[in-house]
Amino acid sequence: FVREHFINFSGRSGERNNGFDVLYHNMKHGHLSTKELADFIRERATIEEAYSRSMTKLAKSASNYTQLGTFAPVWDVFKTSTEKLASCHLDLVRRLQELIKEVHKYGDEQIKAYKKTKEEVSGTLEAVQNIQSITQALQKSKENYNTKCVEQERLKKEGATQREVDKAAVKLKKATDTYKLYVEKYAAVKSDFEQKMTETAQKFQDIEETHLLHMKEIIESLSNTIKEIHLHIGEVHEEFINNMTNTTVESLIQKFVESKGTGKERPGPVEFEECNTSSAVEGVKPRKRKPFGLSGIMKKEKDTESVECPDADSVVSRLISNNNT
Amino acid sequence: FVREHFINFSGRSGERNNGFDVLYHNMKHGHLSTKELADFIRERATIEEAYSRSMTKLAKSASNYTQLGTFAPVWDVFKTSTEKLASCHLDLVRRLQELIKEVHKYGDEQIKAYKKTKEEVSGTLEAVQNIQSITQALQKSKENYNTKCVEQERLKKEGATQREVDKAAVKLKKATDTYKLYVEKYAAVKSDFEQKMTETAQKFQDIEETHLLHMKEIIESLSNTIKEIHLHIGEVHEEFINNMTNTTVESLIQKFVESKGTGKERPGPVEFEECNTSSAVEGVKPRKRKPFGLSGIMKKEKDTESVECPDADSVVSRLISNNNT
Repeated sequence: FVREHFINFSGRSGERNNGFDVLYHNMKHGHLSTKELADFIRERATIEEAYSRSMTKLAKSASNYTQLGTFAPVWDVFKTSTEKLASCHLDLVRRLQELIKEVHKYGDEQIKAYKKTKEEVSGTLEAVQNIQSITQALQKSKENYNTKCVEQERLKKEGATQREVDKAAVKLKKATDTYKLYVEKYAAVKSDFEQKMTETAQKFQDIEETHLLHMKEIIESLSNTIKEIHLHIGEVHEEFINNMTNTTVESLIQKFVESKGTGKERPGPVEFEECNTSSAVEGVKPRKRKPFGLSGIMKKEKDTESVECPDADSVVSRLISNNNT
Repeated sequence: FVREHFINFSGRSGERNNGFDVLYHNMKHGHLSTKELADFIRERATIEEAYSRSMTKLAKSASNYTQLGTFAPVWDVFKTSTEKLASCHLDLVRRLQELIKEVHKYGDEQIKAYKKTKEEVSGTLEAVQNIQSITQALQKSKENYNTKCVEQERLKKEGATQREVDKAAVKLKKATDTYKLYVEKYAAVKSDFEQKMTETAQKFQDIEETHLLHMKEIIESLSNTIKEIHLHIGEVHEEFINNMTNTTVESLIQKFVESKGTGKERPGPVEFEECNTSSAVEGVKPRKRKPFGLSGIMKKEKDTESVECPDADSVVSRLISNNNT
């Protein structure tokens, strides 16, 4: 079916027999399409790279946001997810670049194949040139025959001399012979042209089919890559949603309490402390404040500092808690 | 559980009773987080907008590629798909912008609520200031009591006069009374502080819980939007894959043959045509070429031109076909 159609197209133009040219140029357009497909994929890769870079920047923004307050841990969830999105798109860039290399390689193979084909069809090109020149000659000889024919008829009607009519008849005879000769020559050249053109059209069709199949394979590879990355991006979204579900209001408040609180026991009452003179003599120094009945809690406070919130603000970390029963 | 923890945190600092400050500032950090979330979404929207613009540009590239050759129709498939991708991302931009408006609206509400809360907790702030000043006074009076105690002991050991020892005893008595007075005062202030601080911690916790729930709702809305657009993008990919499956090698060659070919019948042989003088006298004009036995095909050629390929290159469209049986 297809072959028939492509070969159908192999024919002559009315007076030009340009079919060969059309098919030959189409083969060259095949290589142009390959280059354009590489350009298209390259442009897409550039877009994805810019997107990935922007996402990396966005992830950095998230980590620069305030680390204070109950909401702070949520930024880590955003940061991780945004970094993963950036990574997905960078992965796409890498795979598109690999694909571009393949397309270029195919483009180079195409040029070699085209050079080979050009040699193989040189005989057909000759046949095309032959039929084109014989067509012109045939056309001219026919016109000349018709002119001579009309000329003889005119002389007869106008009652010219027998000598003049005879002279015209000789000319007509000569024109008729030339015309008939070209009709015969044309038939021979046409047969050669048709045979060679049929073979060449078949060759061009084979090349075209192989080319289109290869292009479709490249595009399929492109689609598969994009589809795969799209799936990964979907997974990153799902993970973000799960992480947010796990980041409950309760857990955020718990985290905040753990980082800022200083314990769970409410400090006891402050009572009058009798002066212990034996220790007081050595212990009291004018510049140093002494705890007043909070010494036990102060000790606990230090434990809390070192174990639970080593990085906490020093003022804040000195807080102690009330135990609300 | 949670409430208990947040209230636990409401307590006093060892000597500073800073819990109120911490909770009050946390409320302010809540508003900062809201602003930062709006910033984050805005930055994401900017990234998506740039991506969408680039995709529109890429779609234009696809339509600027060569319209010659068998591959040309494939660029339409690329163009359509790329335009749809651009449109998906632009849709995301619009919806993110709507979300940003909501976040800003919430931020404004937050400020109003905070002002109201600040007034409501002014009594607690007073209680905090009271306990802070009484703590300092208590500390000083205790230090003074200890100093006087040590002083009296020193005089006794050094064998000072009874008069000197008695004088020290009076001073110690006065310091002891002051110290005991502050211990009592502190107990009263502590009770008031603990009651008010418990209420206020509860209030701050309620505000914090509501805030975090609202933030989580905004983030859920963001996730849902991104997820929905991601699904649409997936549909665009599927459509592209289907369109490419339908764009068969056969159909591409068929299309090319239809646009470039001029018919399916192989031209017949060219035969000698007897001069018809009656028509020839009128018909032959020196400058006009006449068809030689191809008049029927020439007619067919014109039909083909007007019906099948009105836009085709004039040279190319004058081709006629061979019928390869």
